[in-house]
Amino acid sequence: MKKKVLLTGFDPFGGESINPSWETVKQLHGETINEILIIAEQVPTVFHQSALVLKKAIQQHCPDVVICVGQAGGRPHITPERIAINIDDARIPDNDGQKPIDEQISDHAPNAYWSSLPIKRIVKQMREHGIPASISNSAGTFVCNHLFYQLMHFIDRSQSMIKGGFIHIPFLPEQTTDKNEPSLSLDIMINGLRIAAVTAASHDIDIRESGGSLC
Amino acid sequence: MKKKVLLTGFDPFGGESINPSWETVKQLHGETINEILIIAEQVPTVFHQSALVLKKAIQQHCPDVVICVGQAGGRPHITPERIAINIDDARIPDNDGQKPIDEQISDHAPNAYWSSLPIKRIVKQMREHGIPASISNSAGTFVCNHLFYQLMHFIDRSQSMIKGGFIHIPFLPEQTTDKNEPSLSLDIMINGLRIAAVTAASHDIDIRESGGSLC
Amino acid sequence: MKKKVLLTGFDPFGGESINPSWETVKQLHGETINEILIIAEQVPTVFHQSALVLKKAIQQHCPDVVICVGQAGGRPHITPERIAINIDDARIPDNDGQKPIDEQISDHAPNAYWSSLPIKRIVKQMREHGIPASISNSAGTFVCNHLFYQLMHFIDRSQSMIKGGFIHIPFLPEQTTDKNEPSLSLDIMINGLRIAAVTAASHDIDIRESGGSLC
Amino acid sequence: MKKKVLLTGFDPFGGESINPSWETVKQLHGETINEILIIAEQVPTVFHQSALVLKKAIQQHCPDVVICVGQAGGRPHITPERIAINIDDARIPDNDGQKPIDEQISDHAPNAYWSSLPIKRIVKQMREHGIPASISNSAGTFVCNHLFYQLMHFIDRSQSMIKGGFIHIPFLPEQTTDKNEPSLSLDIMINGLRIAAVTAASHDIDIRESGGSLC
Repeated sequence: MKKKVLLTGFDPFGGESINPSWETVKQLHGETINEILIIAEQVPTVFHQSALVLKKAIQQHCPDVVICVGQAGGRPHITPERIAINIDDARIPDNDGQKPIDEQISDHAPNAYWSSLPIKRIVKQMREHGIPASISNSAGTFVCNHLFYQLMHFIDRSQSMIKGGFIHIPFLPEQTTDKNEPSLSLDIMINGLRIAAVTAASHDIDIRESGGSLC
Repeated sequence: MKKKVLLTGFDPFGGESINPSWETVKQLHGETINEILIIAEQVPTVFHQSALVLKKAIQQHCPDVVICVGQAGGRPHITPERIAINIDDARIPDNDGQKPIDEQISDHAPNAYWSSLPIKRIVKQMREHGIPASISNSAGTFVCNHLFYQLMHFIDRSQSMIKGGFIHIPFLPEQTTDKNEPSLSLDIMINGLRIAAVTAASHDIDIRESGGSLC
Repeated sequence: MKKKVLLTGFDPFGGESINPSWETVKQLHGETINEILIIAEQVPTVFHQSALVLKKAIQQHCPDVVICVGQAGGRPHITPERIAINIDDARIPDNDGQKPIDEQISDHAPNAYWSSLPIKRIVKQMREHGIPASISNSAGTFVCNHLFYQLMHFIDRSQSMIKGGFIHIPFLPEQTTDKNEPSLSLDIMINGLRIAAVTAASHDIDIRESGGSLC
Repeated sequence: MKKKVLLTGFDPFGGESINPSWETVKQLHGETINEILIIAEQVPTVFHQSALVLKKAIQQHCPDVVICVGQAGGRPHITPERIAINIDDARIPDNDGQKPIDEQISDHAPNAYWSSLPIKRIVKQMREHGIPASISNSAGTFVCNHLFYQLMHFIDRSQSMIKGGFIHIPFLPEQTTDKNEPSLSLDIMINGLRIAAVTAASHDIDIRESGGSLC
């Protein structure tokens, strides 16, 4: 049986003209590996709006795995995130001018959700393929964490069997030509996210008999 | 008239199993671009011995341009070096177990030599091709600086018209899978050094009528 | 009415001979500022054991505020932590040789607890006194986060009105003489934690009529 | 016989409202330790003008040792500089609006001068007193390096026995309250420079019979 992995990437923000997350995931759109189909969707770098677009995409595609991807400028590694926290706290405005300070994302909801991706296995697989990777314990408090939290909250509330999580990726080299920051090439990012998608979808197969689904 | 560019790379040191400088320059060996032939030679990560190997290679190939390349672990950019200084001061032993402390490289010689590569132009060209690059003002005091100094001293003493210099490059991604350090892909490094070679050789053509030579 | 603030510091770990957290908090032991009494206790850098020592100290001293303090080598700022997460995941052994991997701290307990200290106000106060400070969104997954989580879990389960949280502090200068890492002086750390204690205890006074207590 | 050490510090630049170099050296002005008198003078963060002020101060005070001090924002250690290079290459304007690009400081002058301070001994002494210190191999290409080069050139041309050099110091803590950069406290900086002054002046006594002088 074919599995579906939905990858999302953001549009550019914070003065950058590209966003490596969208640049990367769009390259994987439509690819099928080991019976796993990858679908890519763009989401806006906007609190709440990003989550609405994500939910619509989930309802449309009925994926088995959802991996949201975002830029973490300054990190040298691809970093699967461990945990999403129930707070918006922005230092800069999102692409819609919103700048929430210490606001809960969702009332009557848990303080935090764990990623349900096999993050350690993903990191291990990436490293075995020569890709710099490590676990991150914080997705920040901007739109990346917001979307991650909303994803996990949606999965939780809908009692879905979808596996979900978030992966931060570094700048692309062309974003750092004149700033002294680490970067990774598009090829490496594409390969890293392909590994993440396949590892998450396969892991899923390994550990459960049958997957429930929203659709 | 054809121009020749000699690139050198080091063998691995400091516990690493590969050296990105040799991994990169060997890929360019034998390539001809715009009438410019690139030759690559490996040098040992050993004080003095590296310089002997370099001089032999210069005498053998009669290059117009010599660019020695070395690893600068921790830097996120490709960094053409501005200046070589007349001192060996090692924190770790070289590959022959030598660990000189505050020793002059050459007596009765200048404290420092400038790179004669067009380092600003090289950085500009790299950036225009999306490659993270900047000038460095220190090649350190280990074998990299040693070889750079010896190269410039040799060119100076032999009154050669060779253009010479040194470029430090970051770790390769596979060297950083489990350390939190920046890296650049082999492709980018190869392209960066190709740009450096062509820029140096072409610049050379632009600014002087005729080049003297050792051969 | 007098308020009590309990500060805890860890014993040294990870090859260091001192721990700045204990070096700092012990200097504040017994100090009274604005009717606020500061008490300091040392806890071992050991999973679970640290929490037992903490609980005993809380029961003994009946504090209004508890601030656990730990070393975050590599950070240049004093960083009040925002959130404690329900996981132990150690890269190095604790001082008792334990090295838990992806273990829950407490079953049937929330994924995460927020600090109940006024962390933004503490950062603001520190900065106004010239002290480098910022919020951190991750206390890691070693003994620091463990103790922080256990503190908040204990407060939650005992329905106590105690305000609790965790503050990470940098290396002391003498720990960095031969490593290229940031540090802050003991004086600054002492002053920073004094400000944190007073801010937390005063804030407490401001926002609630009466404090419940364990004692 | 009494020795004199002249310390210089810069006025603020680059958007900062204070300069740690002047804040520190002015605290040592007039201090006598072990028969060593310390004098402090402020110099402007201006190419060439800084050197004129320095030379005037040297002629006025007839010091045995001159240590110019400057801010190196981002470094966590106090860093005695090894070498001054004959170039001005500014990324930002100096306090007089000058922004030289790749200009020689002095024609018919060496590419570089070594510090004549006992930089290794100074680092060792500082570390033994718990002060984070290491050698730097580049003072950059802005006004700090300019003044350092001019100092050494002046000493060289005047055949003076003055020992001269440059020490970079980190930000003060209050400069980093809202930027994620390392700092060191004023006390540590003062103590570090006191150690440098005494070490340089005493070293001087040890190694030569008699000192020539400009005066």
